[in-house]
Amino acid sequence: MRDTGRDGDDGHHNNDTGGYRGAALRALNDAGAAVGDSVVITYKDGTRRAGILMPRYEHDDGAHVVTKLSSGYNAGIDVDLIREIAVDRRGAVTDIGRGGSDGDDSGAGSDGTAAEPSGPARSRAAEKILLLSTGGTIASRIDYRTGAVTPVLSASDLRDSIPELADIAEIDSEVVMSEYSENIMPEHWLTLARRIDERAGDAGGDGGKSGTAAATAASAGGDRPYAGIIVAHGTDTMHYTSAFLSFALAGLTVPIVLVGAQRSSDRASSDAATNLIGAARFITSYSGGGGVYIAMHDGTGDDAIACHVGTRVRKNHTSKRDAFATIGGRPAFVVSADGGISPSSQDGAGRPRPGPEYSPKISLDRRVALVKYYPGYDPAHLGHIIDSGCRAVIFEGTGLGHVGRAMYGQVARAGERGVFMGMTSQCIDGRTAMTVYESGRDLMEMGVVPLEDMIPEVALVKAMWAASRAGDSEGIRRIMLENVASEMTAR
Amino acid sequence: MRDTGRDGDDGHHNNDTGGYRGAALRALNDAGAAVGDSVVITYKDGTRRAGILMPRYEHDDGAHVVTKLSSGYNAGIDVDLIREIAVDRRGAVTDIGRGGSDGDDSGAGSDGTAAEPSGPARSRAAEKILLLSTGGTIASRIDYRTGAVTPVLSASDLRDSIPELADIAEIDSEVVMSEYSENIMPEHWLTLARRIDERAGDAGGDGGKSGTAAATAASAGGDRPYAGIIVAHGTDTMHYTSAFLSFALAGLTVPIVLVGAQRSSDRASSDAATNLIGAARFITSYSGGGGVYIAMHDGTGDDAIACHVGTRVRKNHTSKRDAFATIGGRPAFVVSADGGISPSSQDGAGRPRPGPEYSPKISLDRRVALVKYYPGYDPAHLGHIIDSGCRAVIFEGTGLGHVGRAMYGQVARAGERGVFMGMTSQCIDGRTAMTVYESGRDLMEMGVVPLEDMIPEVALVKAMWAASRAGDSEGIRRIMLENVASEMTAR
Repeated sequence: MRDTGRDGDDGHHNNDTGGYRGAALRALNDAGAAVGDSVVITYKDGTRRAGILMPRYEHDDGAHVVTKLSSGYNAGIDVDLIREIAVDRRGAVTDIGRGGSDGDDSGAGSDGTAAEPSGPARSRAAEKILLLSTGGTIASRIDYRTGAVTPVLSASDLRDSIPELADIAEIDSEVVMSEYSENIMPEHWLTLARRIDERAGDAGGDGGKSGTAAATAASAGGDRPYAGIIVAHGTDTMHYTSAFLSFALAGLTVPIVLVGAQRSSDRASSDAATNLIGAARFITSYSGGGGVYIAMHDGTGDDAIACHVGTRVRKNHTSKRDAFATIGGRPAFVVSADGGISPSSQDGAGRPRPGPEYSPKISLDRRVALVKYYPGYDPAHLGHIIDSGCRAVIFEGTGLGHVGRAMYGQVARAGERGVFMGMTSQCIDGRTAMTVYESGRDLMEMGVVPLEDMIPEVALVKAMWAASRAGDSEGIRRIMLENVASEMTAR
Repeated sequence: MRDTGRDGDDGHHNNDTGGYRGAALRALNDAGAAVGDSVVITYKDGTRRAGILMPRYEHDDGAHVVTKLSSGYNAGIDVDLIREIAVDRRGAVTDIGRGGSDGDDSGAGSDGTAAEPSGPARSRAAEKILLLSTGGTIASRIDYRTGAVTPVLSASDLRDSIPELADIAEIDSEVVMSEYSENIMPEHWLTLARRIDERAGDAGGDGGKSGTAAATAASAGGDRPYAGIIVAHGTDTMHYTSAFLSFALAGLTVPIVLVGAQRSSDRASSDAATNLIGAARFITSYSGGGGVYIAMHDGTGDDAIACHVGTRVRKNHTSKRDAFATIGGRPAFVVSADGGISPSSQDGAGRPRPGPEYSPKISLDRRVALVKYYPGYDPAHLGHIIDSGCRAVIFEGTGLGHVGRAMYGQVARAGERGVFMGMTSQCIDGRTAMTVYESGRDLMEMGVVPLEDMIPEVALVKAMWAASRAGDSEGIRRIMLENVASEMTAR
């Protein structure tokens, strides 16, 4: 059921010129400009615009030149309106001319087997960052004919689309998988966590603890450890993945920053570049050690990128650029347009707490269910979940953490069968409190454990992780109530 | 499992003095002050405080006098600190001295059978409002010994606790049920909707369409129709109930305003009074016809009560006074502290649209399930839901409206079996858009219907209502996509 429809290619596609063709290619050749160069474009009306010349893709027409403005936005300029293109500075990244896929048949497919350049982009930067791509809109392109978005960009395409990255750090890139995030499964979390552990697990110093031969090969030519890891990821379930990495890799000494985009990378309105740049700046500036973060727009403008603690964040809007929000507080850090990093002013929900010493625990047990209660919920559905062999149930209850009396029979049965039951709230924000009302007290008597202000999705992921590390309900309970990765905030 | 623990009663409880006893009762008797009076209390240090003398409950000690301040807050004042109590104005509501329950054994219990005074409070007001109580924190009291909250106040207790109400309208009161809202089931929605239809269904003019003999008896002595109806309701599931009333009673010509409290009515910090007063002011000032609203604090202060459209609102915090929020916009109306009603400035999500002509459709079919998708969701759970005879499934998908490929088998099976499938987003805010990504297109091919920006809980309630009115999936689809009660906003 994959959309394989593509516009007809007129054969003029040219890798060496970043995919430009037609009038746009002629204009660039006349100017001696190459993709990655800083250019100043003078319009016929005399106005000027400075930007970085971006690669063009074979779907696109030959009538526009695309530059990335200092805001991070891409702007497409009609060549008919251009009087002159002047090269201001040669691109720092010389292989950017390869931008876009290599042709109709060799783009990074959803099978994740695409050939991947392993060499790092040349850079004057002192620090190294590893960019892992998992797929998603950030690694996708829009089909302007149908308006549909399909995943085609590799991690190196992504890196090379954003020349500014090379000024911030030397970027190694690698495709781990190529999936939209609605198709990211718990098994993918394991794959990703293992890859990160291989590549950066020994960054803290005691080399060899987790590093492997593969890791050495991948960070080719680099004896410097990675200052941090950027994970390009679809936004739909990015906060589930960030939660798993937070638990499985707690204590990793370098930051892991998940980055997505609400608009695909080739669109003028894409937030991919600003989010990636913000993540890279955060990594090279951050002195707080490790931690897992999500970096996305802090507002609808491009002036600030929010870095949210990976266990306190949620996608709260289907389409806005600032869809991600720290629940119960401001983001932990904000990267401003000038590259400055400021810790958020508040002292509460959004701030990370110090983690444990690094000792990766990369495992999970899928026999966990999230049950959202609602008036009319059929208790037989919970019964089926219990009978299917579930080891833990996370309730998304109402208000302070309630389910209706009609559920009590199945709740009691789950307790008797040794199923761990944790309570969160469908209010999303705020803390559970199960001693205030009789419903809460009744449920606690049957074994339901209030999970403070843990976000329901985070509690689900943590329960999968806890269930793989504990033999029984009591063991799961102990892990669930331990604040492993800032998933609960202080009262 | 009900909490029946009560403080020992010393026998000095006195209904005629609003439950006051001990030193507090003596101070009030000395001043000739009765509950409901406006009083000015002079402290021994010379400062003064004006307020309305509130009833006291038998759980409370005899050392404090409680007054309601103009802010709506109750303040407990230690009698040892009081120099003088002066009566400024006699209470408008003379039966307020009955405040509190009538004793240990006769409070309104959770069985809803408590004796209920049927006479209206005496009032100088021109308009009549019907106050229906369903239970919840707003009709509850805190046990200061255990910190637990239990439901004991009847609708008339509630009315009488707030003397200001009598200045706004003549208030008839009635207990419909006494349940915390986590125990409110779809059948309760039917009971409540039928009661409202009986009491106010003919308010628009063509009398007798829905009115019954019982209704005439209940609005005793009143030939005036109700200007509106206030429903006191627990907050946990108030937005599910408001959604059902919105659909079942669409077109009712008088407003229905659901009101809850995040702190019980007898607590100093209770928001019950300000919310009820705001709802009453909204009803007597509103000239827009009918509609179902939820009235709760607009912020943490007492200066504004928000009136949210009943299909666009959600409880978004477990405990804050301003827990309720209009999704995607500002509330439709805000009632300010001086009683002024202002429509919200925005033109989008929060504004009600004109409803259809009143023709109550009070029915539902419980064979509907809300399925929140998450990574690792076991498709067998959906299979069980389908096999249980469900007629409609509302997905709470990720992002723009997705579920993972692993779900496709069961989704296709549901489609083939004629189960209606509607898609909403767990992002809560924002619009579904299923043509952008291949996952969405795949799901639509299997019969999943994107439900615009309908809130998941509202879509669930609407599907129960639609399923009772349609014979097949196509009939349900038609109703789901019709904007009945402002549940969808314009693109």
